[in-house]
Amino acid sequence: MSSLKTRIEAANDRAFDILRGGKPRLVGVAPALEVVPGMAPNLILHSAPAIDWADMSGPHRNGIIGAALWEGLAATPEEAEAKLASGEIRTAPCHHHDTVGAGAGITSASTPMLIVENESYGTRAFSCISEGGGLRLLKWGAWSPEVLENLTWQAKVFAPILDAALQASGPIDLKLIISRAVEMGDECHNRSVAATALFLRQIYGALVALDMPKEDVRASIKFLVESEHFLLHGIMAAAKSMLMAAEGIEYCTLVTAMARNGVNFGIKVSGLGDRWFTAPANPVRGLFFRAEWSDADAAPDLGDSSITETVGLGGFIQPCAPTVTQYVQGSVAQAIANTRDMAEICHGSNPDVRIPAMDFAPGPLGIDIRKVVKTGITPLLDTAITHRDGGLIGAGEVNAPMGCFADALKAFGEKYAG
Amino acid sequence: MSSLKTRIEAANDRAFDILRGGKPRLVGVAPALEVVPGMAPNLILHSAPAIDWADMSGPHRNGIIGAALWEGLAATPEEAEAKLASGEIRTAPCHHHDTVGAGAGITSASTPMLIVENESYGTRAFSCISEGGGLRLLKWGAWSPEVLENLTWQAKVFAPILDAALQASGPIDLKLIISRAVEMGDECHNRSVAATALFLRQIYGALVALDMPKEDVRASIKFLVESEHFLLHGIMAAAKSMLMAAEGIEYCTLVTAMARNGVNFGIKVSGLGDRWFTAPANPVRGLFFRAEWSDADAAPDLGDSSITETVGLGGFIQPCAPTVTQYVQGSVAQAIANTRDMAEICHGSNPDVRIPAMDFAPGPLGIDIRKVVKTGITPLLDTAITHRDGGLIGAGEVNAPMGCFADALKAFGEKYAG
Repeated sequence: MSSLKTRIEAANDRAFDILRGGKPRLVGVAPALEVVPGMAPNLILHSAPAIDWADMSGPHRNGIIGAALWEGLAATPEEAEAKLASGEIRTAPCHHHDTVGAGAGITSASTPMLIVENESYGTRAFSCISEGGGLRLLKWGAWSPEVLENLTWQAKVFAPILDAALQASGPIDLKLIISRAVEMGDECHNRSVAATALFLRQIYGALVALDMPKEDVRASIKFLVESEHFLLHGIMAAAKSMLMAAEGIEYCTLVTAMARNGVNFGIKVSGLGDRWFTAPANPVRGLFFRAEWSDADAAPDLGDSSITETVGLGGFIQPCAPTVTQYVQGSVAQAIANTRDMAEICHGSNPDVRIPAMDFAPGPLGIDIRKVVKTGITPLLDTAITHRDGGLIGAGEVNAPMGCFADALKAFGEKYAG
Repeated sequence: MSSLKTRIEAANDRAFDILRGGKPRLVGVAPALEVVPGMAPNLILHSAPAIDWADMSGPHRNGIIGAALWEGLAATPEEAEAKLASGEIRTAPCHHHDTVGAGAGITSASTPMLIVENESYGTRAFSCISEGGGLRLLKWGAWSPEVLENLTWQAKVFAPILDAALQASGPIDLKLIISRAVEMGDECHNRSVAATALFLRQIYGALVALDMPKEDVRASIKFLVESEHFLLHGIMAAAKSMLMAAEGIEYCTLVTAMARNGVNFGIKVSGLGDRWFTAPANPVRGLFFRAEWSDADAAPDLGDSSITETVGLGGFIQPCAPTVTQYVQGSVAQAIANTRDMAEICHGSNPDVRIPAMDFAPGPLGIDIRKVVKTGITPLLDTAITHRDGGLIGAGEVNAPMGCFADALKAFGEKYAG
């Protein structure tokens, strides 16, 4: 037993060092079909864990239908539904294609993807570019002619300009941006205003110098300036690229993915390979953006953006962003208590993510399923609230369910101690 | 006596409302000679309070000599000194010309000035544009051929481009930027990284659209991106424009200016007109940027940038920017205690400046000389440390001396109760 414990600790130390040592860099933008492994013209990705078309939540169903129409895979929503039911149009979790998607995470062949490379370990992860602000977006499982027109503009005009600017500027160091943004009011999940501003500062010079139509460049800059949380998707891909490097380490009990599909909450564990361990997703505690909305309208917890908490951002470092505590009528004291709770379930702390309101204490990093089960504390996630029928309606926080951690630990015991 | 107290309270309420109601907007950039009231070709401004050439500190003397050379008023430092001694080259405090200058505050006829208008009250204030980062700059009382070349580039290339962008973008709302920046790790004196990033975000679109030489625009953007605290000077002019509107209110005991000249610390009081009340400037407590420097190298407290504290920013809201507490080996708890102290000497609190680490409590605003004298608490300033011979050597904090407040209160009593 002592030997098993020693092996686990060594494996966890190794995974932790890999997480800490990651150097994610944003290197470019390209259509999903060109860069995402296993992407296909009739494949639509959604936020994980895996779920059949028939069982999906409203935001996923609507978002996938919207993407099918946008890609020209169907002419009407009815045709799309029929083709989805028959399998002529396929669906799969983003995570199965080295991709992470916020909200419903809708990603299809033409979707312009941020490409993030983890320089230290050569892993490469993807996330769609942000559709900008607004309550009704494909990523919230809402579509309309305007939503699809915006996607087309992004794919045809904006993405090539952003990619050209990135090629001219060279890779953007996302680790450095994250380290600075957490000192500037971002926890890098529900809030990434500073990260986005720091990112924009780095590419404006290249944008200005582009030999591309001035009107398109101006429109692209306008879009970037108005998209206050643009870089969240880049941070998500950065987190995925860091975690991919820590996957598949034998004996390792650290979590390598947390994701929700509006029905289930799922985790992956390094020593347990590609298997998802799931439990019903919890409802989100939070603030609704309009008085007309209430808990009854809300879909259960949704999206891959919890990849940020999986690398110790978001709900794990709430004191960095007191603004997000306002969604839950919280306080700085409560946020600090939450971070201390998260430290209880983590392998170590990360000197590259420091918390100003805690006198620059390093943030917790590396969720250990053993500690979750032992303490009864589950990861705390900052998150959006999505309407059951699609659309963003609020923001708040949610705890992961215990069930998936307990199941994973049981499976771990069966594999390694059984 | 009750009647006097009532009059004072009414006057202070009015001044406070004027401070709160200010809407400073950055409207343009122009050479000092074109826009600064009373500017003249042979006049060199410096940070206040007023001081004779013979009595000035090293940073002021060096900076003024540098400006004389840059303007072509003298061919050698010796010639400049002779003309300054004879009065052929004149000096005056920035404050006497609706201007505020950081550090030595060196401002001459060709200096490109930020123009800030207080939309609510029609006041207009100025501050030179930032020379960028670096330890040896004219504003730190250091000059060299490189420093003067940079000034020439700023005046001939950068300032016209920035002005053209501002004219195209329209006025920039500095009040809004300040409100957001204090939620993003800035206290808007020793740290203005977020404010600068938010400002840049607003003018990039206009910069890109300029019909000006592309290389010059690129160089200007590069300069802006590398000048992390560029907007400090804009915030200073904003503060001055807000305070100018509250000057000269009979019976008012609120402070309308705090400034230091490396020898004396001076204040002005609304009800006491243009008179400076001074006391010897205190040494700055802080961190030296190189091991070779110590207290023995430091000039006493210097610069007009304490105009930020005069409107409740900087040292008054240290918990907004835990990074600046690192200069004094401080803590968030100490920063919060400091803000509570500042609230003791202020007339009220400002809902437009909220402190995240204090659960968004509004910051203190409006220094009342009566409360300073009664409590024995003097304003706390975040500040730079300047070398006795010029050059930036550190950063930290300093308390205003009590003497100038006691003298002002005495003068107030003589004027209104005597």
